[in-house]
Amino acid sequence: MKSIRVLVMGCGGVGRQLLEHIISCRSLHAQQNLVLRVVGVCDSQSLLLVDDVSEMELNDEFLLELCRAKSAGSPLSSLRGSGKFHVFENFEVKEKVIDAAGLLGSSSGLAVVDCSASSETVEILMQAIDLGCCVVLANKKPLTCKIDEYEKLVSKFRHIRYESTVGAGLPVIASITRVLASGDPIFRIIGSLSGTLGYVMSELEDGKLFSQVVNAAKGLGYTEPDPRDDLGGMDVARKALILARLLGWRINLDELKVESLYPNELGPSSMSTEEFLNRGLQSLDSYMADKVRGASLKGNVLRYVCVIEGSRCHVGLQELPKDSPLGRLRGSDNVIEIYSRCYKKSPLVIQGAGAGNDTTAAGVLADIIDLQDLFL
Amino acid sequence: MKSIRVLVMGCGGVGRQLLEHIISCRSLHAQQNLVLRVVGVCDSQSLLLVDDVSEMELNDEFLLELCRAKSAGSPLSSLRGSGKFHVFENFEVKEKVIDAAGLLGSSSGLAVVDCSASSETVEILMQAIDLGCCVVLANKKPLTCKIDEYEKLVSKFRHIRYESTVGAGLPVIASITRVLASGDPIFRIIGSLSGTLGYVMSELEDGKLFSQVVNAAKGLGYTEPDPRDDLGGMDVARKALILARLLGWRINLDELKVESLYPNELGPSSMSTEEFLNRGLQSLDSYMADKVRGASLKGNVLRYVCVIEGSRCHVGLQELPKDSPLGRLRGSDNVIEIYSRCYKKSPLVIQGAGAGNDTTAAGVLADIIDLQDLFL
Repeated sequence: MKSIRVLVMGCGGVGRQLLEHIISCRSLHAQQNLVLRVVGVCDSQSLLLVDDVSEMELNDEFLLELCRAKSAGSPLSSLRGSGKFHVFENFEVKEKVIDAAGLLGSSSGLAVVDCSASSETVEILMQAIDLGCCVVLANKKPLTCKIDEYEKLVSKFRHIRYESTVGAGLPVIASITRVLASGDPIFRIIGSLSGTLGYVMSELEDGKLFSQVVNAAKGLGYTEPDPRDDLGGMDVARKALILARLLGWRINLDELKVESLYPNELGPSSMSTEEFLNRGLQSLDSYMADKVRGASLKGNVLRYVCVIEGSRCHVGLQELPKDSPLGRLRGSDNVIEIYSRCYKKSPLVIQGAGAGNDTTAAGVLADIIDLQDLFL
Repeated sequence: MKSIRVLVMGCGGVGRQLLEHIISCRSLHAQQNLVLRVVGVCDSQSLLLVDDVSEMELNDEFLLELCRAKSAGSPLSSLRGSGKFHVFENFEVKEKVIDAAGLLGSSSGLAVVDCSASSETVEILMQAIDLGCCVVLANKKPLTCKIDEYEKLVSKFRHIRYESTVGAGLPVIASITRVLASGDPIFRIIGSLSGTLGYVMSELEDGKLFSQVVNAAKGLGYTEPDPRDDLGGMDVARKALILARLLGWRINLDELKVESLYPNELGPSSMSTEEFLNRGLQSLDSYMADKVRGASLKGNVLRYVCVIEGSRCHVGLQELPKDSPLGRLRGSDNVIEIYSRCYKKSPLVIQGAGAGNDTTAAGVLADIIDLQDLFL
């Protein structure tokens, strides 16, 4: 039986879902001679770590209790004293994770899994890699840091996986990695990588008003609490940067051209979320309706896409033929078209649900399993 | 620098293309600290093997000469005497491959790559796996043998890859493997996995006659020399079986329901290829036109698909909504829809060129590279 030791950073929706997936896959993984041993879990304040990372693990009963506690809004520290583990507070977390990485990285191995949304984890991850551990990310931030740090982070590229940072569990990174590994040069990627903006654009196509559609998307839970976090395009830009860097581009986030769907005057420094939803959005209705109509007159539809091509990495609105994989996209699915020597006339297309904790955590788990040959 | 030793069985179009890809990727792989060393090549009659598999390899200049000789129709044996290698004839091939596998399997590792179309390789492959080697297949036959042999072949499932057996280089097997590894149960797969039949069905949709379309497909080089090899559905059935077995189904090829697009009376035992093309096909025109029209009246289109669902693995014609990924398919692209817990309402869709030596060989090469963690 091969053991994969796992330390999970972040126990928001994705982190908790990952723990539940690990537990529900026990018998499946046992059939494959695999066992995943969770040795520690972090939230934004604390690290809960077994006393002896080489010999012990958090058992399933306790992990479920931990998930329940976190769902109910309790911090990890509330679990202190209920088992053979320690809870370390903020200032100790980094040191203790690195201690565990040092101990396990040179012996049985450790997968450090970043399901947080923090930009502060990159140093821990880099050190973990240096110490011989593997790293799996659902968190985009460490991959969209400055290029020098990024290159350090991915230098041992077989030790790092980050499928769920783009299109959730959709096999986007895995597929691009395969294409590149076979020496098939990719010359163009175009994708709709935001379920939220995909939904918004396909609803606009049906003649609805922008303000109406964004409010509906918020009502359906498709948007961030402040929908401007989606409409600004930075989340898509991070995904685009991750893909561009995978293609070998040495660029930084601030070099991307990013089109925001709202102007500065309607930004968070000028008005509250409520004001934006109730008043700001409406001032954009006729502009957006005109754009949609303009596209339609040419037989096109409007999509919010990332385009990586030539020397251009661009995120924003684009008119696309109604009869293309991107043009046909409806609802909140993600879709990506990859053009290469082998997929020149008609692209390699990957499409499906690109958001949701279940799918995202499933992608993280598949990444962990895919690292198994690096474990004893 | 990590060395992956490779022995290529089969030097038809895919095998030769693979050798060329390996050569043209030298600098790419060097950047990743990888070097692929080709120690031997088989055709249907002989094995050309370096004198010392641990220390030697066939150099690029010689491999290109080998590709040229094979393209020109010369057998491998014609190269005898032109370097530090031996050419073994038919009756010795198996023994010599297994000797090499035994030597390398327990030391530096060996990837035995089956690019042949033979059903005779399965024993060599099973022994290679037993001896600690890795196996990569573009050849469907060893994976569609009796279930007991299949299970032996894939028992060390991390040592075997076979992406290019389904949809050529399209990441179909890799994606399904990821979904399954994450504990996301797949309850339905439907796909159009024959470029030839995809082309035929989309042309029929435009009102052309069956006989006309099949003859055109043959003219474009889309079909086998005898198009009945495509129209009979057995090639699609093998792909369906490979996918069903990947899902864990313990079934054999003869348990699949396979619909042939021509009746027995028009089969190879009743008439020659020429007769079939000139006369036989026309007798099917009105039947096929009626089926296409019938589907169209319901807003559907006709597709030749494989369906794996419930307890059914079926290959044949199906009416599908015009407005589904399969219904929208045009030309010779492959497309596959995967339904699971995570991809329930809208499936995970993978689409793109599913045939061609370049793409198929690229898939094989990506598989070899993906095995690198098992090599020293």
